[in-house]
Amino acid sequence: MISRDGTVLALSGGIGGAKLALGLSHVLPSGRLAVVANTGDDFEHLGLSISPDIDTLMYTLAGLDNPETGWGRAGETWNFMAALEALGGETWFRLGDRDLATHVERTRRLAAGETLSAITADLCRRLGVGPRILPMSDDRVRTRVKTDEGWLDFQDYFVRRRCAPRVLELSFAGASQARPQFEFLRLLDAPDLRAVVICPSNPFISIDPILAVPEVREALRQCAAPVVAVSPIIGGKAVKGPTAKMMAELGLPISAAEVARRYDGLIDGYVADHADVGAMSGLSVQVAFARTLMQSLDDRIALARAALDFADALQDRRVAAE
Amino acid sequence: MISRDGTVLALSGGIGGAKLALGLSHVLPSGRLAVVANTGDDFEHLGLSISPDIDTLMYTLAGLDNPETGWGRAGETWNFMAALEALGGETWFRLGDRDLATHVERTRRLAAGETLSAITADLCRRLGVGPRILPMSDDRVRTRVKTDEGWLDFQDYFVRRRCAPRVLELSFAGASQARPQFEFLRLLDAPDLRAVVICPSNPFISIDPILAVPEVREALRQCAAPVVAVSPIIGGKAVKGPTAKMMAELGLPISAAEVARRYDGLIDGYVADHADVGAMSGLSVQVAFARTLMQSLDDRIALARAALDFADALQDRRVAAE
Repeated sequence: MISRDGTVLALSGGIGGAKLALGLSHVLPSGRLAVVANTGDDFEHLGLSISPDIDTLMYTLAGLDNPETGWGRAGETWNFMAALEALGGETWFRLGDRDLATHVERTRRLAAGETLSAITADLCRRLGVGPRILPMSDDRVRTRVKTDEGWLDFQDYFVRRRCAPRVLELSFAGASQARPQFEFLRLLDAPDLRAVVICPSNPFISIDPILAVPEVREALRQCAAPVVAVSPIIGGKAVKGPTAKMMAELGLPISAAEVARRYDGLIDGYVADHADVGAMSGLSVQVAFARTLMQSLDDRIALARAALDFADALQDRRVAAE
Repeated sequence: MISRDGTVLALSGGIGGAKLALGLSHVLPSGRLAVVANTGDDFEHLGLSISPDIDTLMYTLAGLDNPETGWGRAGETWNFMAALEALGGETWFRLGDRDLATHVERTRRLAAGETLSAITADLCRRLGVGPRILPMSDDRVRTRVKTDEGWLDFQDYFVRRRCAPRVLELSFAGASQARPQFEFLRLLDAPDLRAVVICPSNPFISIDPILAVPEVREALRQCAAPVVAVSPIIGGKAVKGPTAKMMAELGLPISAAEVARRYDGLIDGYVADHADVGAMSGLSVQVAFARTLMQSLDDRIALARAALDFADALQDRRVAAE
């Protein structure tokens, strides 16, 4: 019997996922949200261990995010970057002065032997983040992108090359040896799990790395609570980022339905935008329609509520059918 | 035959030494000044390799120094530090946003296998520093301070504890295995060396580490050019820093003459302040008097000129005596 007081587990990448996670954090009672963050984007740069998706989630949920960029911190200054440029350092990955403290502190603590999970939990506590943010794994997983210019490290492709090269294939180096984060697996199997929400993040580079960690797919399939994904595609276009471009390059139709098909067997329901009513037939999962564009905080909250209501309804139907 | 167009080699610690080095850089023709920096103060903090004396020299000679503090950069901001504090990081050693770029870039390049000398030369070139800044050694030397509270790492004693513990003894870990920087030794033996100037830096923690590197004392003794030290003590007081306090704790008289005695056998001349006329008798070296307090740029230039004129005069006398 799944309680509506149970925990909701969200799977998320960076900006888009963090928006929905923020909505969920407003809708759910304190302590009832855990967000699993993709760490396939993590990389070492200038000697620092950088976890872009964890940081975007952390800053967003702490109310410290930069509303203009979606990444980094509000009220940021860039004096480190300007000085680094004058010294001939690499400046293609923008690190703000305040943001830098996160990377320096994380790097120091990882070098001292702490896990990414423990460090993230402590940083969240200090920044006043309510929801738990769980790295998908404490082991190293690195997304690599095979392009028409050869294999590129993820941030090389994503930031330095601004997603310009044509994507042929993605791989998640280290994923097959990685262990899923312990609380992530525990929550998927917890009797009080209310729902799993797959955020409207890029399926190829934000959600697939999470799913590539051993046991995760199976745990999602076995999970007693409903699993609902929210479409990152609205009317055949991605809201932000390279999702649509990647789908085209990978020879896939650019559609909300196609993303649902990628999650086939893992999800019980799919939330698509009203713009895609009529383009969602032939799917094996239930589809709910909502406004999925999240411009305001109210949009984030409304979409969170829609996803949760849908998950609860799916659960009610399942219980009724038993 | 030593030319007045020859190179001047200065031995320096941080703030006080950098002031005289700046004066020397104004007095000497381009390319005729090399400054050997103490690296016994260097340390690893927050995962970063920090070289305080090199940086103070570099910023001072680039005109980027902070005139209020004497260390760090002008127009500095502290957003990294504020963010680090909020994350529970260590903030006792103040790292400005701009300054941080130096440490991050140095750390990255050291980890990539470059020498401290090569990195320093490149950073100086990029910042437009004219004089060469030479680390005393590319090998690791670490000043440690034995105090009434036990042995402390130098920055622990100097910055974190603000020189409060009583000093009993100093040691320079690694010094006996360190090799002197190659250009440093080459210059000491170069036929065109005009003079060596020991800057008015703390003898115990800024100059002694340089002298502790093997071959340095002997090379100074053998050196054909005059070696002149400038007093860090004016009228029985240190201008800045713990020199006088250390002398007292080590049971030494706090006097300009006492510092000269420490350099006995190494120097040919000693520049003391007018305030110490009458307190310099009984020394085995020639003494010249000058205004040694460097408040303005003109003061720095005048003292540099006085030290050089004295060195040149000592040399003329030596030549005449031969």
